[in-house]
Amino acid sequence: MNEMTSNDLNLVPFVSVDHMMKIVLEIGVEKVLTGIAEYLENDFKRWELFDKTPRVASHSNEGVIELMPTSDGEVYGFKYVNGHPKNTKEGLQTVTAFGVLADVNTGYPVLLSEMTILTALRTAATSAMAAKYLMPKGSKTMAMIGNGAQSEFQALAFKAITGISNLRLYDIDATATDRCAKNLNGLGFNIVKCNSEQMAVEGAEIITTVTADKQYATILTDNMVGSGVHINAIGGDCPGKTELHKDILLRSEIFVEYPPQTRIEGEIQQLPEDYPVTELWQVMTGDAEGRTTDKQITLFDSVGFAIEDFSALRYIRDQLEATGQFQNLDMVADPDDPRDLFGMILRAQAAQGK
Amino acid sequence: MNEMTSNDLNLVPFVSVDHMMKIVLEIGVEKVLTGIAEYLENDFKRWELFDKTPRVASHSNEGVIELMPTSDGEVYGFKYVNGHPKNTKEGLQTVTAFGVLADVNTGYPVLLSEMTILTALRTAATSAMAAKYLMPKGSKTMAMIGNGAQSEFQALAFKAITGISNLRLYDIDATATDRCAKNLNGLGFNIVKCNSEQMAVEGAEIITTVTADKQYATILTDNMVGSGVHINAIGGDCPGKTELHKDILLRSEIFVEYPPQTRIEGEIQQLPEDYPVTELWQVMTGDAEGRTTDKQITLFDSVGFAIEDFSALRYIRDQLEATGQFQNLDMVADPDDPRDLFGMILRAQAAQGK
Repeated sequence: MNEMTSNDLNLVPFVSVDHMMKIVLEIGVEKVLTGIAEYLENDFKRWELFDKTPRVASHSNEGVIELMPTSDGEVYGFKYVNGHPKNTKEGLQTVTAFGVLADVNTGYPVLLSEMTILTALRTAATSAMAAKYLMPKGSKTMAMIGNGAQSEFQALAFKAITGISNLRLYDIDATATDRCAKNLNGLGFNIVKCNSEQMAVEGAEIITTVTADKQYATILTDNMVGSGVHINAIGGDCPGKTELHKDILLRSEIFVEYPPQTRIEGEIQQLPEDYPVTELWQVMTGDAEGRTTDKQITLFDSVGFAIEDFSALRYIRDQLEATGQFQNLDMVADPDDPRDLFGMILRAQAAQGK
Repeated sequence: MNEMTSNDLNLVPFVSVDHMMKIVLEIGVEKVLTGIAEYLENDFKRWELFDKTPRVASHSNEGVIELMPTSDGEVYGFKYVNGHPKNTKEGLQTVTAFGVLADVNTGYPVLLSEMTILTALRTAATSAMAAKYLMPKGSKTMAMIGNGAQSEFQALAFKAITGISNLRLYDIDATATDRCAKNLNGLGFNIVKCNSEQMAVEGAEIITTVTADKQYATILTDNMVGSGVHINAIGGDCPGKTELHKDILLRSEIFVEYPPQTRIEGEIQQLPEDYPVTELWQVMTGDAEGRTTDKQITLFDSVGFAIEDFSALRYIRDQLEATGQFQNLDMVADPDDPRDLFGMILRAQAAQGK
């Protein structure tokens, strides 16, 4: 447990994986999800003032490594994140991530944090925040297709933020469904384990698709989606990776985070480049309409955007003083005289008595 | 002092500012500079296989924050670096930086390092490596205009890598010159402190310009540069910031790192977009000529490129096992089952006995 040492500019608070788990456990996962959603709403409502750029991706045969920067003019943030679907077979995470916040005024970093767990939290909080604006009023039942690493976070965010209580789970790997159901046991859900996508969507007002593997590219077909449903499509998030049949898209009102990125990475990569979509932030500010009728199918085509990581990092930074869950890293050279960097090394040498 | 724990993939070795100083002192600064130059040569000679992209910059009124990524197909690296000229007045560094290496095959980070000191080292090593190919044979005297945070590193790199021994120092702030001379005292130089740029360049075969402030935009005028000189121009490194009068450029053979970036940021931003320049790596592989006559003025218009940071990070990574100068950070979530991220949190809870 450390004091925040804001006067020591060379020290940068670091939130490790262990710290992040302790923050989540100390505050409570649903409260953390609700808190992140509040920071997300705050930032989505001032969307226009952010520096926005599509992520900077480095592709290889095995996967992708991306940098996702943004800035609100006072605080700069970026996330490093990889996506390697083949990792799971080697006992590794498909996605790992860490992130940084920095002071725009000085350029000094002010936070380094793990973001593997935090990305799962912010993705779930973003999904639930979008659903709050788009789902049919009073929705209680969510189908969740894909029961992997993201699934429990999605379920808990929808419970905490939108009030759903019934979960219908399906995964092509039944052990994933079993594990998800077991992990969520006792957390306030009525859970039905399903044998097919068709069974999972029965009676669901919300359908969340959160699959990872490129080879099951059409996990929802048109006949499975009834009128009035809200679809929360998480898994289609890179070029060549989609989850929904194109016919579903053509029947839906489509909401996205940042169109230049979603048109490359999202479900709408299946549609013409000028196909009309609505930016989610505009629904939140009242500049655009969300759901307008009970019969409408709404689709949140989520790919994840840098501003969401920014919001999540801001939230975590604001929990450090109360929780003490961080360690300070000596990351920034801080000589007494900033023009005398070499002298700092000489003084370290003198201090060693060499 | 830690063991390298390459089996614990959740742990990432972190090299702090203090560790970096100890590595430099333990190995010796000139040997470190020579070592980095060897890694640079190795990487410049396989330039074509790198993923290359201009840096991703976020500009504000106060300065700039940049991400500089690259990859050789096996290792990915990026640097975070800021540039805030006004910081010095507040007792802060103009430039601070840190960097990361990651395994392209898994996307997992494998090194986090401070790069404020390391950037000064790699910039100096790059300058001296370029001069080795471009300066007049047997050069012994270097003028150095600008005696700030980079100056001692430049001097030592040129001594270790090119064999210069005479230094002629000038800075508009005489206290900077005094400090630089004092810091280099006893390190094997004949040092002359000069009262003007004109005096500094007298008899110098190499002229290094390494100033920071935007307002002194022409620190070398045409009449100061005699035939046969090699100019190492470091300070002109962002749009609107140059150090040399355009007439000097027109008399010089110009060598650059990565033309798409240098045309925006370097001295050659003063020239037409199609003005001929030579890429330094081609001189090193023999694909292009370097200096061809004794009378020629050669100019290395250096702005710093991601591959140089990559080389420097590779060098540092290879010193960790022998020096033990790092600490392991718990940066990557590593559940027993990669699909069970939430279960990892539940098990942490169980371990707490909550």
